[in-house]
Amino acid sequence: MSRFWSEVTNALSPYVPGEQPQIENIIKLNTNENPYGPAPGVLKAITEQTTGDLRKYPDPNAAALKQTIGGYYGISPSQVFVGNGSDEVLAHLFVAFFKGKRPILFPDITYSFFPVYCRLFEIESRQIPVNDRFEIELDEYAQENGGIIFANPNAPTGIFKPVDAIESLLKTNTDSVVVIDEAYVDFGGQSCIPLVNKYPNLLVVQTLSKSRSLAGLRVGFACGNAELIEGLNRVKNSFNSYPMDRLAIAGAIASFFDDKYLKETTEQIIYNREFLTKGLKKIGFTVLPSKANFVFACHRQDAADIMQQLRERAIIVRHFDAPRIEQFLRITVGTYREIKLLLAALEEIVGA
Amino acid sequence: MSRFWSEVTNALSPYVPGEQPQIENIIKLNTNENPYGPAPGVLKAITEQTTGDLRKYPDPNAAALKQTIGGYYGISPSQVFVGNGSDEVLAHLFVAFFKGKRPILFPDITYSFFPVYCRLFEIESRQIPVNDRFEIELDEYAQENGGIIFANPNAPTGIFKPVDAIESLLKTNTDSVVVIDEAYVDFGGQSCIPLVNKYPNLLVVQTLSKSRSLAGLRVGFACGNAELIEGLNRVKNSFNSYPMDRLAIAGAIASFFDDKYLKETTEQIIYNREFLTKGLKKIGFTVLPSKANFVFACHRQDAADIMQQLRERAIIVRHFDAPRIEQFLRITVGTYREIKLLLAALEEIVGA
Repeated sequence: MSRFWSEVTNALSPYVPGEQPQIENIIKLNTNENPYGPAPGVLKAITEQTTGDLRKYPDPNAAALKQTIGGYYGISPSQVFVGNGSDEVLAHLFVAFFKGKRPILFPDITYSFFPVYCRLFEIESRQIPVNDRFEIELDEYAQENGGIIFANPNAPTGIFKPVDAIESLLKTNTDSVVVIDEAYVDFGGQSCIPLVNKYPNLLVVQTLSKSRSLAGLRVGFACGNAELIEGLNRVKNSFNSYPMDRLAIAGAIASFFDDKYLKETTEQIIYNREFLTKGLKKIGFTVLPSKANFVFACHRQDAADIMQQLRERAIIVRHFDAPRIEQFLRITVGTYREIKLLLAALEEIVGA
Repeated sequence: MSRFWSEVTNALSPYVPGEQPQIENIIKLNTNENPYGPAPGVLKAITEQTTGDLRKYPDPNAAALKQTIGGYYGISPSQVFVGNGSDEVLAHLFVAFFKGKRPILFPDITYSFFPVYCRLFEIESRQIPVNDRFEIELDEYAQENGGIIFANPNAPTGIFKPVDAIESLLKTNTDSVVVIDEAYVDFGGQSCIPLVNKYPNLLVVQTLSKSRSLAGLRVGFACGNAELIEGLNRVKNSFNSYPMDRLAIAGAIASFFDDKYLKETTEQIIYNREFLTKGLKKIGFTVLPSKANFVFACHRQDAADIMQQLRERAIIVRHFDAPRIEQFLRITVGTYREIKLLLAALEEIVGA
């Protein structure tokens, strides 16, 4: 608190990301990072750009990256927006489409940055409870709104909503923008991007931080109708002309040119997820059905206590001290070895 | 325009950065890029970070970079804020300190992103005319305000205001935040950073894009009282947890460990600036006294016409079609060779 802060700054409760502890040999399963590195071609492309040309600004429009993403998904580059991580993309779309007179709708349990953007940009919202199985009930979004946003697979539950269910929502909700945050869609879900030509109010957001293993490079994107993308560009160009640096653009482009690597690593993570899920169930955990690179699980033993005991064994998982989910742990799907060590530690802790 | 855009998005007139033409062998003197590359240690540091570790998020707080910048300027890391280019730093500070009930003050001629931020964040402003010599008259800022911001050296004039004049302003203006954008200060100016311990309402913004030749990497920072920095962190953490990627953090840190290179290249640019200034005056240009890596010059011949004729010769300079300065050209200080080619072309064009 300071007399120099604006009112809105005083009122903020910022999002708290999972910690990045600087401890060697820690098993870090708290921020849904990919246990495998980025595709080899990505590192090569970045190294090739690490030259004296860094003295020059990047392309403010990142046209080559938009061309690549458009080509990959079979849409026009004018239907693609890119930003400094999907968080920046999300922030801009809240300003571009959600800042209005009617409240926006999102689930009570979803990515916890959404209410933070509402506070920052002074946007009204209404939270729609997920059902007892933690599923989003799309029927309940059929009400007056200034926009709808949720993650699919949802965070931190990992539960995936089929595309046809979302299409039903789009058929009835035609007057406001519907945003699907598909950060985790490549781990067994199905993208709504093919629907953007059909529904001018659909915006699909993705990140390169998860399936493409580039959390350290900060690249996210959105696909939608060209008019929506133009709205995002207007906000972006009033905020920061060059959010994507030369190395991020080069690395991001290269990541779309090795589908074999993407397929192999995501399939390995899906395999590991099933191994983790089975192992957790065996020692008494309830595990929500996940299509993400994490699972959301609870036990009759207290979640915060389990997290603390794991921490003492140098294993970090995520716990949200929030209503309805305070007895759950969000556990990133790591390598086979990491999962084995985690399960062994949990077996000791819960005394199974 | 779209029915899905928010009112604020409809009302935006985004900042237009200098173009980045994809033409080979062009002489590009339009975006104030450094003609010399970044220090060799910077490229080495980035290459060392181009590993599988890009799968992991960067430090959201970029603590190592704040430590480095703090050490360089003799202040605490808690007095340093970093962001994705100084434009992002500026955007956040408009929200953190300027979004209030009273209008902020800035010169009528200064960085043209300032009025853009005002529109994006719905902040009232009052523009104070620079005098007939294009100098900022600080006495005229002694009026009720919600904040003061200007560039020093100013953009696009290049004119530098001595630190003691700014200190006089700080002594009387104690109730609002005063921001000095020092993007170009290393080319012969003097920084206000040493004053941040004395004036709790002073914030100094710098960039690595100009003197440190890292426009392609996107790094900017602000120095000020720890309470101001905390305000910036609150806004940043409500917008994007990880704006600085791993490569940008590594490269930025390395740039503070080769002062000899910084000194040599900035001195060369200062030398080139004097050569350019003399050459321009010789063919009839009026040149404002610059402490930046550009000069602002006018001729009795029409500025837009000169710009167009230079363009036909593959030389790009910047022209602002704005009141009071529409007869000026902003010319980046390039290499000795580039300046010679520019002067030869101008001599032809103005018929001197």
